[in-house]
Amino acid sequence: MTVELICVGTELLLGNIVNTNAAYLSEKCAALGLSMYYQSVVGDNPGRLQKLLETAKERSEIIILCGGLGPTQDDLTKETAAQVMGKTLVMDERARKEIEKYLNQMHHSITENNWKQAMVPQDAIVLYNKNGTAPGIIMEGDGCTMILLPGPPGELIPMFEQQVYPYLHKLQPEVICSKMVKLSGIGESRVETEILDLIEGQDNPTIATYAKTAEVHLRITAKAKNQEAAMHLIRPMEEELYRRFGSHIYTDEEAVTLEEAIAALLKERSLTISTAESCTGGLLSGRLVNVPGISEYFKEGYITYSNEAKEKLLHVSHRTLQNFGAVSPETAKEMAEGCRKAAGSDIGVGITGVAGPDGGTKDKPVGLVYIGCCCMGNTYVKEFRFRGNRSRVRESSVAQALNLLRSAILEETGK
Amino acid sequence: MTVELICVGTELLLGNIVNTNAAYLSEKCAALGLSMYYQSVVGDNPGRLQKLLETAKERSEIIILCGGLGPTQDDLTKETAAQVMGKTLVMDERARKEIEKYLNQMHHSITENNWKQAMVPQDAIVLYNKNGTAPGIIMEGDGCTMILLPGPPGELIPMFEQQVYPYLHKLQPEVICSKMVKLSGIGESRVETEILDLIEGQDNPTIATYAKTAEVHLRITAKAKNQEAAMHLIRPMEEELYRRFGSHIYTDEEAVTLEEAIAALLKERSLTISTAESCTGGLLSGRLVNVPGISEYFKEGYITYSNEAKEKLLHVSHRTLQNFGAVSPETAKEMAEGCRKAAGSDIGVGITGVAGPDGGTKDKPVGLVYIGCCCMGNTYVKEFRFRGNRSRVRESSVAQALNLLRSAILEETGK
Repeated sequence: MTVELICVGTELLLGNIVNTNAAYLSEKCAALGLSMYYQSVVGDNPGRLQKLLETAKERSEIIILCGGLGPTQDDLTKETAAQVMGKTLVMDERARKEIEKYLNQMHHSITENNWKQAMVPQDAIVLYNKNGTAPGIIMEGDGCTMILLPGPPGELIPMFEQQVYPYLHKLQPEVICSKMVKLSGIGESRVETEILDLIEGQDNPTIATYAKTAEVHLRITAKAKNQEAAMHLIRPMEEELYRRFGSHIYTDEEAVTLEEAIAALLKERSLTISTAESCTGGLLSGRLVNVPGISEYFKEGYITYSNEAKEKLLHVSHRTLQNFGAVSPETAKEMAEGCRKAAGSDIGVGITGVAGPDGGTKDKPVGLVYIGCCCMGNTYVKEFRFRGNRSRVRESSVAQALNLLRSAILEETGK
Repeated sequence: MTVELICVGTELLLGNIVNTNAAYLSEKCAALGLSMYYQSVVGDNPGRLQKLLETAKERSEIIILCGGLGPTQDDLTKETAAQVMGKTLVMDERARKEIEKYLNQMHHSITENNWKQAMVPQDAIVLYNKNGTAPGIIMEGDGCTMILLPGPPGELIPMFEQQVYPYLHKLQPEVICSKMVKLSGIGESRVETEILDLIEGQDNPTIATYAKTAEVHLRITAKAKNQEAAMHLIRPMEEELYRRFGSHIYTDEEAVTLEEAIAALLKERSLTISTAESCTGGLLSGRLVNVPGISEYFKEGYITYSNEAKEKLLHVSHRTLQNFGAVSPETAKEMAEGCRKAAGSDIGVGITGVAGPDGGTKDKPVGLVYIGCCCMGNTYVKEFRFRGNRSRVRESSVAQALNLLRSAILEETGK
């Protein structure tokens, strides 16, 4: 089946935001075995959207629209899509109640234009929204289905996963199954070189690489008449990847993140952890706390952005800071060891670096980051030179800290 | 003038990469005062690209294409675009020499298909490429100009800045200027209601609302013959927004974030801050540390996900935890006051809540979050009931903590 993506939003046309929804939805559609030939972006302009929808309706079986479902006057995606599908809008009582409940919970007063969001096309499947006020919509017509999703990723992603994915899955005559194998501690080009023969010889299953920050994901996808047959095609390829990459593979489950894989390791091996962060300022602990139930293993975290805090909370020695500076392998080591000791945990991780844009010198340029990991008494320290802006440097630091943490645990307690 | 963007690449349709070129080029075109109404993505398929180009040629004066200029057989952007413009391809001797020089420098051997990249449409302006082998192309026809750029950002960006931007600048008679006004502590629909008359009466300047997590942004945009004249149109509208929203406006600068506005307040009023986080696990401090130079005002942060850590690091009383629970207004208050005292800062912020998916009860459901802010001895505590998944609850908590922090500072030290 063919699918086409239309993102609505003047902020995309003005370049105010990067279209991450398009990448997310494209990846999911590819995993579902849907063929996407076109993506478009239009502004909040009903005339142009209508024209585009009419073209899309001729050439694609499914049209996914995102954005333009807000309460304001210029949010006209729903009205325009309903018109193209020949549907009138009717009030949906449940949507009305959900919006009221949501706004009450958020302590926002309800204004007249909020009710506009409770209007839905007749006979539509309404996708109720737990994370915002705009419900999503599925409209089925002859030869074309339109799926409308809210633009904010925090609303779009859970709505897609919980409600749209299962819907699309059912429409597909052949079963497409895929398995995601996720690697850490190895670079994209090395992964690609090592599977060149697999990619060149691919047919069914296919294999695709996705480069993430400090991670590489490999998706094996097979088409077959049922799930069992598809998994039968996938399994030998997966085994081959395990043979080639071994413990670089931290999971073969789509939904498992690196922090979840690490939390599972901590649980399995009864280890506790604490963190000390300077330039990342809490983002590492923030990622660890992504994992529900981590509090049993994650004892305490310290944000020690200033030198005083490093001395006071982590007992980094004044001499180390003076002789080597706050951004040094010595400080990273003492931060890791200091937080481990202060928290009384088995493992301590310390991060210190120059995130920029200022503060860089010739010797210690922006992007220089040291990460220490003290695991069961042995301390590993790694130096990184990241490129990019402040937030990119910080994000890369957190990702590499998780990589170092995982490899230190495997090194100290067995692979 | 109207401009339209077409990105060519199957990797975009599969979601393997995020389309950052689109955001980059859109922002540049907006700054040049070009009106962009459409963006599209197509795969490396000449038939579909040709159809799209024919449509684009009817509706836009300038078409920017990026991607598909490589040496391989499936790179067909140039061939297809030339065909649509009715041009034949001819060998460009300088391009041929530049390609040879570039490949020699990179110690790559030259293969026959590299010469394909030296073929250019007759009468085209050739944009020589210092960072790769594919030259860019500008083709002028009656009523439509096509600009072809290589896909890799490392080639596209310098080529655009050095060669395309000056070319486009000369074509433009008018400039577009815009001003972003950002609000916190007020909901999107209330903002929308209060500016309904401005939106309905808008012409030049126009006004648009953007809903962010716990923030609303308003963009005022004007067209005029020069920047000064455009700013002259924008100013009265901006003043009107200040009259209506007062201290809800935290900045009128595009690039300033809420955490930066708070950092500026801290600096201006010589205030220091510390944080204590439970369910958000470092995300609040992570946002504060987004601000370069915050270390002067942000003393320390504590991640106290466990009850033990709350007692040990923040001196939250055992009785409070026992009688009211970790998720209670009392605990939030003691966390805020405790971290302020432990860090010796002027302000302390504490966050405690049930982020889910587990741990919710009837009395304390998932999404219940208490935020405390102790500012100069006065403690504010607010209750929130957020919806959505774990990461949504945590993101909303951080955003609302920043809102509470800002309003507490204004309350205690003057607006």
